Amino acid sequence: MRAEILSIGTELLLGDIVNTNAQYLSKRLAELGVNVYFQAVVGDNPTRILEAYEQAYQRADLIVISGGLGPTEDDLTKETAGAYFGKGMVFHLDIWEPIAQYYKIRGSKPVESAKKQALFPEGSEILPNPAGTAPGCWINEDGRMMAMMPGPPREMIPMFEEQVVPRIQPYLDQTFQSRVLRICGSGESNVEDALRDIIRKQVNPTIATYAKEGEVHVRVTARGSTQEEAEGLLQPVIEACHQRLGDLIYGEGLKSLEETVFYYLNKCNKTIAVAESLTGGMLTARLVNVPGMSTFLLEGLVPYTNRAKVRQLGIPRELIEKHGPVSEETVTQMASAVASLSGADIGIGVTGWAGPSDDPEQPVGLIWMGLTMNGSTKTRKIIFSGDRNRIRFFAANMTLCWLLKTIKEQIE
Amino acid sequence: MRAEILSIGTELLLGDIVNTNAQYLSKRLAELGVNVYFQAVVGDNPTRILEAYEQAYQRADLIVISGGLGPTEDDLTKETAGAYFGKGMVFHLDIWEPIAQYYKIRGSKPVESAKKQALFPEGSEILPNPAGTAPGCWINEDGRMMAMMPGPPREMIPMFEEQVVPRIQPYLDQTFQSRVLRICGSGESNVEDALRDIIRKQVNPTIATYAKEGEVHVRVTARGSTQEEAEGLLQPVIEACHQRLGDLIYGEGLKSLEETVFYYLNKCNKTIAVAESLTGGMLTARLVNVPGMSTFLLEGLVPYTNRAKVRQLGIPRELIEKHGPVSEETVTQMASAVASLSGADIGIGVTGWAGPSDDPEQPVGLIWMGLTMNGSTKTRKIIFSGDRNRIRFFAANMTLCWLLKTIKEQIE
Repeated sequence: MRAEILSIGTELLLGDIVNTNAQYLSKRLAELGVNVYFQAVVGDNPTRILEAYEQAYQRADLIVISGGLGPTEDDLTKETAGAYFGKGMVFHLDIWEPIAQYYKIRGSKPVESAKKQALFPEGSEILPNPAGTAPGCWINEDGRMMAMMPGPPREMIPMFEEQVVPRIQPYLDQTFQSRVLRICGSGESNVEDALRDIIRKQVNPTIATYAKEGEVHVRVTARGSTQEEAEGLLQPVIEACHQRLGDLIYGEGLKSLEETVFYYLNKCNKTIAVAESLTGGMLTARLVNVPGMSTFLLEGLVPYTNRAKVRQLGIPRELIEKHGPVSEETVTQMASAVASLSGADIGIGVTGWAGPSDDPEQPVGLIWMGLTMNGSTKTRKIIFSGDRNRIRFFAANMTLCWLLKTIKEQIE
Repeated sequence: MRAEILSIGTELLLGDIVNTNAQYLSKRLAELGVNVYFQAVVGDNPTRILEAYEQAYQRADLIVISGGLGPTEDDLTKETAGAYFGKGMVFHLDIWEPIAQYYKIRGSKPVESAKKQALFPEGSEILPNPAGTAPGCWINEDGRMMAMMPGPPREMIPMFEEQVVPRIQPYLDQTFQSRVLRICGSGESNVEDALRDIIRKQVNPTIATYAKEGEVHVRVTARGSTQEEAEGLLQPVIEACHQRLGDLIYGEGLKSLEETVFYYLNKCNKTIAVAESLTGGMLTARLVNVPGMSTFLLEGLVPYTNRAKVRQLGIPRELIEKHGPVSEETVTQMASAVASLSGADIGIGVTGWAGPSDDPEQPVGLIWMGLTMNGSTKTRKIIFSGDRNRIRFFAANMTLCWLLKTIKEQIE
């Protein structure tokens, strides 16, 4: 099977955004065993979109499209597909009603053009979009397949995985099985180094590492004529990865770091509370990402100033003045005070210098983390490099990693 | 002048790297006033590269290429250009010598194929590469121009700026000026609706809307034979946008919403403190994104549970039980208590249901915001739709918008 990736949107041609969709789709199609020989980007212009469709079908069976499904007049992906396939556009009232409801709930009247989002080429299959308003659609006509998906990655990715992949699968003669190992607390080159000989040796399964925000993912993909065959090939390589990487691997699959923390908090039935300074709410917000977290997260504090550290946590002003707000002493007080004040089983403290200019005597990127449990507090110091928000992100992330490791040890 | 951007390299088709070159070149060409209607990516395959050249010249005068100039056998950009233009490949000894030297210095013998880096189509101009080994080249033949540059951005960017731009410049007769208006608190389709007649009417300047996370950007671009002429055309359209959109426009250019809040907090010299429930630290973390915020943000509280609302803020338990944690009464207490406890001039409260399942009697997405200033508290209710984290993001964003509007009014 041959596919081409077509990204539609003038903002790509103007360089306003980077085309991460093309990368994501290329990678995933390669994993599925679909050959991709061309990627193209075209603006919101019906003549040029039509030309792009015509050229792509001269070379490929499948066009995977993102962008141009929105409510505005220059969103023309579906309309042009209708023209290409010689199909009229059909208005779907059942699709329109929840969209109209969306506008109504927000107290605004939908503009007339918003109805475009419920218009689809005749005979196409509608692909639901739980993450946004504009649904996608799928056409399969005389061996020419077209997947039309929205441009925003957080809408496109789940639609591709849940709606498009199953529609491609029947046309693939091999089955692919892949698993993703999630790693926190180590860089991509270290992970690659640990796995280098396995990566070099393997043809099937293949192993690829991906640097993600604050983590590294290792994807192991096996192909076989049956699912069992592919699974069977996968297993020994997954085990070898676990042997090499040990507890750097915090989980597998789609579960995020905070979801994994939630899973283990639930398993060991412990409540937590957070006092965070430089991260400024980021760490608590990461925890709150997970539905149901209110059972375990009792509260968060952001004592951003020294005055707030005194007021919120009762840390003696003299202690902060003597050791500084970024110190083992202060973070110990933060973790233990937030635990005892909130009544939580685990208290977390994070403080540090995010820069650009903070304390002249301590380096930007210096982080102290504290963790109070069962009446005692342990601390950890780490220095990150990067800009202010990268340092803050890594500080929150590393604290979550450390928390996870600690609660996992409680269970084992 | 019309250009197309062509990126050559199988690693792009496999999704191993993101195509940032295409974004960089698109942005710069737009700034130079060169129209780019297509971007394409093709692998290291001579037939497909040739096809890409042929298609591009059907639509454009200039092809801007990155990738495929290296020493390996699958680097075929120049060879295929030679074939396309019917030119032989010429070996340049003066180019080869420093390359051979480069290998020698590193103690390695150049492989035979490395000589490819000194082969160029007859009659092409060689573009020096101070940042790497492979030089680029430039062909200008019967009105068809081709710039061939290396793939690594740190080699490509200086070559484009220093070698390619001066070669394009003589063909440009116009200069472009553009400005971006930033809008918060309204969707893209509403913004477009408000500007529809201006958008339709205008050829120069052009107006485009872009949906960003929680905001909408309006880009107005004018062209003229001089910078002053373009600026002069821009001004009345910018004013018309301001008239239509009023205080939905929170700023212009690159300054983010939180940076704009910081700017006005500084201008009116007011301190703030935040108590946020469903956003769980997101709002405070957004503020902390801005360096120097510690002067104005005194502290943040995340009273995620009812118990924490009582403990952190002293809100009477009966009040929460009577009206519920998501209510005008509770958010009023949150905003006023965090102001008085912290001693901040402005207190912010946010509470709501983020879902997926919360209070059966109130809708998921219901948000109450409270703002205390000068001893009085105002409140606002809003309902968002979407998944949990989208609701939380929008709640934090809308609260920042409202805060900004309030402090701007203080100054005016």
